[in-house]
Amino acid sequence: MRADVLRFGLPDPGDVSGLRSAIESGAVDPHSIAAVIGKTHGNGLVNDYTRGYLAQSLSQLISEKTGETPQAVRQRIPLIFSGGVEGVLSPHYTVFTIGEDPSPPNGKALAIGVGFTPDLNPEDIGRRRQIDLTAAAVQDAMNEAAIDEAADVHFVQVKGPAFALADIIASERRGAAPVTDNPGKLVGCGRAASALGVGKALGEIASDRAVERAALKDFGAYSAVASCSAGVEVRANEIMVLGMSDKWSGPLIATHAAMADALDIGAIHGAIRSLDFSSNGQLSAEQARRLRVGFVKCEASRDGLVRGKPHAMLNDGDIDQQRHIRAAVGAIVASVVNDTALFVSGGAEHQGPYGGGMIALIAERG
Amino acid sequence: MRADVLRFGLPDPGDVSGLRSAIESGAVDPHSIAAVIGKTHGNGLVNDYTRGYLAQSLSQLISEKTGETPQAVRQRIPLIFSGGVEGVLSPHYTVFTIGEDPSPPNGKALAIGVGFTPDLNPEDIGRRRQIDLTAAAVQDAMNEAAIDEAADVHFVQVKGPAFALADIIASERRGAAPVTDNPGKLVGCGRAASALGVGKALGEIASDRAVERAALKDFGAYSAVASCSAGVEVRANEIMVLGMSDKWSGPLIATHAAMADALDIGAIHGAIRSLDFSSNGQLSAEQARRLRVGFVKCEASRDGLVRGKPHAMLNDGDIDQQRHIRAAVGAIVASVVNDTALFVSGGAEHQGPYGGGMIALIAERG
Amino acid sequence: MRADVLRFGLPDPGDVSGLRSAIESGAVDPHSIAAVIGKTHGNGLVNDYTRGYLAQSLSQLISEKTGETPQAVRQRIPLIFSGGVEGVLSPHYTVFTIGEDPSPPNGKALAIGVGFTPDLNPEDIGRRRQIDLTAAAVQDAMNEAAIDEAADVHFVQVKGPAFALADIIASERRGAAPVTDNPGKLVGCGRAASALGVGKALGEIASDRAVERAALKDFGAYSAVASCSAGVEVRANEIMVLGMSDKWSGPLIATHAAMADALDIGAIHGAIRSLDFSSNGQLSAEQARRLRVGFVKCEASRDGLVRGKPHAMLNDGDIDQQRHIRAAVGAIVASVVNDTALFVSGGAEHQGPYGGGMIALIAERG
Amino acid sequence: MRADVLRFGLPDPGDVSGLRSAIESGAVDPHSIAAVIGKTHGNGLVNDYTRGYLAQSLSQLISEKTGETPQAVRQRIPLIFSGGVEGVLSPHYTVFTIGEDPSPPNGKALAIGVGFTPDLNPEDIGRRRQIDLTAAAVQDAMNEAAIDEAADVHFVQVKGPAFALADIIASERRGAAPVTDNPGKLVGCGRAASALGVGKALGEIASDRAVERAALKDFGAYSAVASCSAGVEVRANEIMVLGMSDKWSGPLIATHAAMADALDIGAIHGAIRSLDFSSNGQLSAEQARRLRVGFVKCEASRDGLVRGKPHAMLNDGDIDQQRHIRAAVGAIVASVVNDTALFVSGGAEHQGPYGGGMIALIAERG
Repeated sequence: MRADVLRFGLPDPGDVSGLRSAIESGAVDPHSIAAVIGKTHGNGLVNDYTRGYLAQSLSQLISEKTGETPQAVRQRIPLIFSGGVEGVLSPHYTVFTIGEDPSPPNGKALAIGVGFTPDLNPEDIGRRRQIDLTAAAVQDAMNEAAIDEAADVHFVQVKGPAFALADIIASERRGAAPVTDNPGKLVGCGRAASALGVGKALGEIASDRAVERAALKDFGAYSAVASCSAGVEVRANEIMVLGMSDKWSGPLIATHAAMADALDIGAIHGAIRSLDFSSNGQLSAEQARRLRVGFVKCEASRDGLVRGKPHAMLNDGDIDQQRHIRAAVGAIVASVVNDTALFVSGGAEHQGPYGGGMIALIAERG
Repeated sequence: MRADVLRFGLPDPGDVSGLRSAIESGAVDPHSIAAVIGKTHGNGLVNDYTRGYLAQSLSQLISEKTGETPQAVRQRIPLIFSGGVEGVLSPHYTVFTIGEDPSPPNGKALAIGVGFTPDLNPEDIGRRRQIDLTAAAVQDAMNEAAIDEAADVHFVQVKGPAFALADIIASERRGAAPVTDNPGKLVGCGRAASALGVGKALGEIASDRAVERAALKDFGAYSAVASCSAGVEVRANEIMVLGMSDKWSGPLIATHAAMADALDIGAIHGAIRSLDFSSNGQLSAEQARRLRVGFVKCEASRDGLVRGKPHAMLNDGDIDQQRHIRAAVGAIVASVVNDTALFVSGGAEHQGPYGGGMIALIAERG
Repeated sequence: MRADVLRFGLPDPGDVSGLRSAIESGAVDPHSIAAVIGKTHGNGLVNDYTRGYLAQSLSQLISEKTGETPQAVRQRIPLIFSGGVEGVLSPHYTVFTIGEDPSPPNGKALAIGVGFTPDLNPEDIGRRRQIDLTAAAVQDAMNEAAIDEAADVHFVQVKGPAFALADIIASERRGAAPVTDNPGKLVGCGRAASALGVGKALGEIASDRAVERAALKDFGAYSAVASCSAGVEVRANEIMVLGMSDKWSGPLIATHAAMADALDIGAIHGAIRSLDFSSNGQLSAEQARRLRVGFVKCEASRDGLVRGKPHAMLNDGDIDQQRHIRAAVGAIVASVVNDTALFVSGGAEHQGPYGGGMIALIAERG
Repeated sequence: MRADVLRFGLPDPGDVSGLRSAIESGAVDPHSIAAVIGKTHGNGLVNDYTRGYLAQSLSQLISEKTGETPQAVRQRIPLIFSGGVEGVLSPHYTVFTIGEDPSPPNGKALAIGVGFTPDLNPEDIGRRRQIDLTAAAVQDAMNEAAIDEAADVHFVQVKGPAFALADIIASERRGAAPVTDNPGKLVGCGRAASALGVGKALGEIASDRAVERAALKDFGAYSAVASCSAGVEVRANEIMVLGMSDKWSGPLIATHAAMADALDIGAIHGAIRSLDFSSNGQLSAEQARRLRVGFVKCEASRDGLVRGKPHAMLNDGDIDQQRHIRAAVGAIVASVVNDTALFVSGGAEHQGPYGGGMIALIAERG
């Protein structure tokens, strides 16, 4: 098997002409699409409908090309979108395909696996059920990807459900109260539980720490490869695992690094060096073309400090903290990798070190 | 003469206890204060009252300590504040003092000069009067600083007036219509005219290009050392010039660099190298202590692209473009200089290259 | 012919289950749908993608049920959505159908006509071409609706194109510069020109005042029935005319009133009285059920005053003025008509008196 | 004694020229000022510094005129400001004075009393200590005002402390964790506890329900006269009680009404009728001049519905729910009383019925 990764610009969540052209030109076989991950124009919060819009646009395009129903497309292919292209970031989506490769494997190459939990209700979010179902689905995805060791996993994207107020109230009324009645806060609980599930599956977090009471409390428990987000447009945790496997072939390799804090530019330099880039501050335009996709998780540090100086992100009533930190950390990464079409997601609860986050990159072999 | 530069954290625009303690301990002679420049908690737009609040707090503190009236303090000392500490940025203010130095000058050292235009009306903003009065005031400030050559000027901060809608309408009613009736847009016109004035004074822009019709049109005309902002709390262009002069002594040196675009991390590395820092990506915490203050100007590129990829800043109805770009470029600079208490200001019309901006740094000699 | 008007709640722009159920139960014949107008969850500004999302959702639903392509649905049926449900307002969409009526007309009844201009380019917006094409399309729609006299027209909705920065720049590059390079401001120019076109078609504005140079200048020229908005999801001016005609039958009647300013609650009371409601401040819940749909246009007064006291809407860098005024005027109307699912749209340039706007209501005969 | 109430427009939080002129003309004796309540330009959330700015401006003005220190002014006079003039609302401040009256009392007239709790720490907010200290301070203020019966109290304003993240973390570190580490949520807890304290003092809430565990839970427990807000600029609960007392004289009278929900325009009409206004929808300009001040509390209903239809306020990541609801309910009240300089405050936890709020008005006798 051989994985490929293609990135397309997104002029508007209703405009998927990039993938359409690629399918129509034969560059992408729509049956080979295993997952799509992207960054849309919205605010990345509960009332962000650009994620659902792009999912609708893509599921219809793929449906039109494969003959599946749009519903079947959505059940087969994780369509994982995060809103918020603050600062220099550029809206885009990345298509992951899995094809046959006649040439035999030659060492390890990029491997992809996907998984889904059963549907989750508002009362499951942030709770044991979400943790454990996520862990199981990650294990399934690793098996599918034929990744033998957790150390070969470089990125696990989880997109779980968010619920608007009406759903939360409906749950309360049937006697199944969610952990909070605040829609925005419930999203954070969901990211936390999902990350604990990833860490549990990969052995990064011991089973007795990957538990409900650790969520948003025991921040020493984290996964360095998890990237979790949520949106009202999905109902199950949708999971994509990226790693290296000797059962796969092709030119693509993956790497990742934990980011200790928002200014940890050293981690970014380390990640690109591990992909055999030589860099003196910023990849050249030519080098940057070797990069296929970059994933970043980040958060506004909960102690209100960055390197000992106060930030204002958590006191802000005008701009959500996630929008602040995506703009900041996204720009730092973009300035090093010389590319603004990055998947940068806020809310890094248990996803990388407390106050920091993680970065994962896929590139062609140098 | 000897210039000194002290930076204080700002917990709240009403809390100037940092400077108060420094005065009361004898570390700062309040009579020696020549200018204060800072970054406050507000949105940095027309309805940002944190700048005026801090100006009120500081003018009262200094008044209390020198015996001047608060009004006299404001007329003597430029109090130049810019709102907006997006992302990792940290609210702070920097006090510039000028004292006697018994030791003779030994080569060039940091020199400071200040200047004021007469009061400006709404109808002056963006127009020839603002350009020419600014140029004259910059020349006065250079003379005061005993900076002989324009090449020795590394930073010119201009804070000019902004006007809320009521002022604009009052001007229209007395037959003196401003260049636009949009308060936010008028601010941009004022930054443009101020920058053209700086560039004219320093010979960076030829006199026949430093004219009213060039404002917001001829973006090839720019100053690489100008940083212009505006606020409703001032009525004249208040100007501070920083440069190097052999009439001054002391350990401080200044540098600057034009930034070609928002991702021009090379310019930042260049600026710190010119201060004799060796850096492999980020100053160490120890190195960073040698840095006294950093000034950055930046803007969302008007062609909607960063390195060829679309950004979303200029289409955004929720977050002003200036808040986006400050978060982004501020973070990039912070990640290199390992310091978040930076004066980062958006709206770089004619202040550095089109789509880019500038950076100026003051440090102790290495 | 007989017009019907059905309103559906909108849980999410991707959820058109209300209309789906109505079609599947036989309550709505999808072939009879003449227009859909609705209010979506977004910010109502340039980067509001909820309008396009709902248009995609509805065009696909109708396509699925009629066998037309989605593109054909969009060319046949104006799908006119305005973003922004601030304050108490509730997201919804209203379906207008035209059916046969075996019973003969008996006096005047609600009549509906639709029209489209050719596609408009960025450089057409705010200009003579947009004014004149709109006027012609309004006339076509009146003819289609068999409304003989302009006095029988109670509401003309125009939805025209908005353009993001990339489109504006592309126009400039091919030598066809739009009237402004600011995407948000261009939207206002488009509303203004569209309203002038409506007023010209209906004789509310003399031909020599319904001209390009009047746009955003001569605010004495206005239409009391025009409601104009714009979005990136359309490329032509799409027009729906509602009025009374003796060629139509059915129980529905329409009315409208100009609102002199944001607090003109008297105009609202007048409009409901003209529908034979007796009211002492607020319609009862039973009375409110007779109301089928309400349309409101409003604006933040450009002189910065409401009844002589300053408002802060036009100085605000955090919340767009349209969001402020929709929240305010929408609530006032809702408090009188006892209904929050109202189509309230900001930006009332030449749509009702300067600083005010208009209200139109459709109800069952009392 | 005789109470007077004077309202001044606020062009800018640094511009208190209205009161300055009134003092300098002899219209206001600065020693007679008992409280100032106002509505400023900020967002009304944690990072709103316009409240502190106005408090600083006023305390300096009064200090200058009375010879007290600014600190003494603040300890003597509650300076209670709420940010957020959304929609049609107008920034202003209202000065309450207490003077001697040679004429004997003749029936009941407006009476004013003020009170302060001791300073509160972050860990006190939302807890029993805040409830009980508030109740005691309300009782003190009633005694001072010589209001004998709770039924004669028409308005109790409480302004308590808000804490930014740094304060919350400092409390946690010294082992005194606040009820939440979210600065915005802590504000809501403080309003809730303060309102429970008011209701307890006035007998509106039984002692066994005015307890910590009722806060933000038992919403059936409410005060119909409490209006509670919080800001970083105060450290104690500052309290002003307004009511009617036969120990006072003068022309002013007060009234109040509970608002059942955001559309309860009937309550507003009821309140103005109780002040002997005849109204058919809106006070005339002449009638409105009789009104001295209006106070409104409101909230976005927590069940997500207004009159059975969904609102979007609690899902919104761009505009805080308080800004939405102030714009909406403020406009409804303004449209009835024909005045936009109203004190409208969001966050009505236990202040009026669940999902509603309250209105209090002071007017000259009709």
